[in-house]
Amino acid sequence: MEQRLQAFSTYLNKQNIDVAFLNSPENVFYLTGFHTDPHERLLGLLVFPKADPIAVLPGMETGQIRDAGWTHEVIGYADHEDPWAMMAGKMEEKGISNVKSVGFEKQVLSYGRSESLLSLFEEVAIEDVEDELNDMRVVKDDREISIMREAAQLADYGVQVGVEALREGITEMEVLATIEYQLKKKGVAEMSFSTMVLFGEKSGQPHGNPGDRPLKKGDFVLFDLGVVWKGYTSDITRTFAYGEVSDEQRAIYEKVREALQASLAISKPGTRIGDLDQTARDVITEAGYGELFPHRIGHGLGINVHEFPSMSHLNNGILKEGMAYTIEPGIYDPALGGVRLEDDVLITKDGYETLTKTSTELKIIK
Amino acid sequence: MEQRLQAFSTYLNKQNIDVAFLNSPENVFYLTGFHTDPHERLLGLLVFPKADPIAVLPGMETGQIRDAGWTHEVIGYADHEDPWAMMAGKMEEKGISNVKSVGFEKQVLSYGRSESLLSLFEEVAIEDVEDELNDMRVVKDDREISIMREAAQLADYGVQVGVEALREGITEMEVLATIEYQLKKKGVAEMSFSTMVLFGEKSGQPHGNPGDRPLKKGDFVLFDLGVVWKGYTSDITRTFAYGEVSDEQRAIYEKVREALQASLAISKPGTRIGDLDQTARDVITEAGYGELFPHRIGHGLGINVHEFPSMSHLNNGILKEGMAYTIEPGIYDPALGGVRLEDDVLITKDGYETLTKTSTELKIIK
Repeated sequence: MEQRLQAFSTYLNKQNIDVAFLNSPENVFYLTGFHTDPHERLLGLLVFPKADPIAVLPGMETGQIRDAGWTHEVIGYADHEDPWAMMAGKMEEKGISNVKSVGFEKQVLSYGRSESLLSLFEEVAIEDVEDELNDMRVVKDDREISIMREAAQLADYGVQVGVEALREGITEMEVLATIEYQLKKKGVAEMSFSTMVLFGEKSGQPHGNPGDRPLKKGDFVLFDLGVVWKGYTSDITRTFAYGEVSDEQRAIYEKVREALQASLAISKPGTRIGDLDQTARDVITEAGYGELFPHRIGHGLGINVHEFPSMSHLNNGILKEGMAYTIEPGIYDPALGGVRLEDDVLITKDGYETLTKTSTELKIIK
Repeated sequence: MEQRLQAFSTYLNKQNIDVAFLNSPENVFYLTGFHTDPHERLLGLLVFPKADPIAVLPGMETGQIRDAGWTHEVIGYADHEDPWAMMAGKMEEKGISNVKSVGFEKQVLSYGRSESLLSLFEEVAIEDVEDELNDMRVVKDDREISIMREAAQLADYGVQVGVEALREGITEMEVLATIEYQLKKKGVAEMSFSTMVLFGEKSGQPHGNPGDRPLKKGDFVLFDLGVVWKGYTSDITRTFAYGEVSDEQRAIYEKVREALQASLAISKPGTRIGDLDQTARDVITEAGYGELFPHRIGHGLGINVHEFPSMSHLNNGILKEGMAYTIEPGIYDPALGGVRLEDDVLITKDGYETLTKTSTELKIIK
């Protein structure tokens, strides 16, 4: 954390940004080690080019940020207090004055909070510091990678539990409940998003909602799930055939798998990010399913389950060692159902490793 | 929905707001009936004083907003498209021009999105439309109340499941997993926040995290949980004693219960909202525990689990029939553990009804 804080302060100094206010719980976690969901309450971190940073959080959580190892200043406010006024007071105390330029995360800070923040200063320039934090976070260090390996392993386990729970007539929600039960028993406090278990035609909706659809022979079964583990996320999708599979279903499955493998095959340092999408998309389009693959190939993965970068075909960024992201091609047929296969991918020195290990070979569950 | 949309359009007309852009998934749900978590993708609703509204959402969810009953216009964008440009195009098509005043939710819309929105127009005034939506949402209609009753009943059930799972040595996470498993089997897709199960000294942290603390005789057991049900939330807290209870623990428990009852007793139309907090706080402070009650008495409840109004002692708003909120006094002793009791309260014509029904009498689980 200290190194990250130091690097961010150095960036502020270089950019002549006098004060940065970070409001995203994920960036606060990245720089403080303290992970919390503040709901509508204010959580923030003031960082300066040359002064000690200040964490701002609900007073009842000050003990927890200390437990997380934060040794710098803390403003803990009560529900009836004004944290902005307290921030102004603390900055005055520290001799932070003559502020000409304020940085914040433009896509995170609400317009209303930006007004509160800007009201603390005379006329100031506004700088977006989000890209810098995205750039810092996009390359994972060894500690982060080792946590993400564990998170992915738990996602693999979730799929395994789901497969073992399948029997004719069971509903999507029953299978979902079983998966989350077993994961919570392993200490998972939070899923990284609403778990998806979709049967048959329901799997044909890229963003379907699990319900009381009972499992029937010939159904595709799609699992999309992930966990939050020690502050980091995983995100896996696997699709299985239940009981039997038609030739048309098999053709769709194999094409999605081919798209995944094509995209994996070019996952290495130096590849243009947009090519991951384009390569998979070409496989699917050439097979005549292009219209049935309506979403980007994937997204960055880390503290957020969807984080920078967004892996669309337009992305001209370049893969670097230590980057982690998902590859998740899909073909969604409203009648036959849908297939999506998603791996969590880590870029290594000269290639890639999938953090998720569940086989992608077509499996017919009997 | 149509009535709500009409009322909001009328408000825009009266305030001379030419275009409102709503970005909160909750407000979009309130006005469209469509509930979704768009993650980092843009979800919004353009509302005009005199023209048909336009929903803006990821293209792969357009089928779902139709299923939810939305009959007005939809902009469904693909990941590589620019929804802002599509919005500008659609407004031009509809003849929306000469826009002088734009409304949005200042506490919701990010500064970055406000820049995108404002760039669609020549020089415009900015109006905050959030208060109007808060005012509309704060009074629940019969349909909303009937859903919230169901949501509260599921929360009661969650507590019952938790109590039945208690046995010496079981961990917090195991109990939590059991509660969520049974709720998901009943069709609950999402908890309204991270479920809390805290034993012994852990219950003494108002925002503690469940872990592998095993249950021991003499522990307080604190459950704080709620569900999202048909788009509405519940939120209950109950504390039990396991095996036995000391006199000091009993004293704390009874004081919290007295504070809850005092605050409930004045819950009726016409009461100043801040008095709910003050009344409970007085009970706790006079008993010498004031320092151990560090949070507000409660919060509004509805589509959001924490919504308007914030029930601190400073709130000068007035209770009205149809309002729903929580009352949740607590006393947190780092050594003895903590007690919090929380009911979901609905203001009726001449008093109140608790939507949560689990008894608040001290129960010693043997």
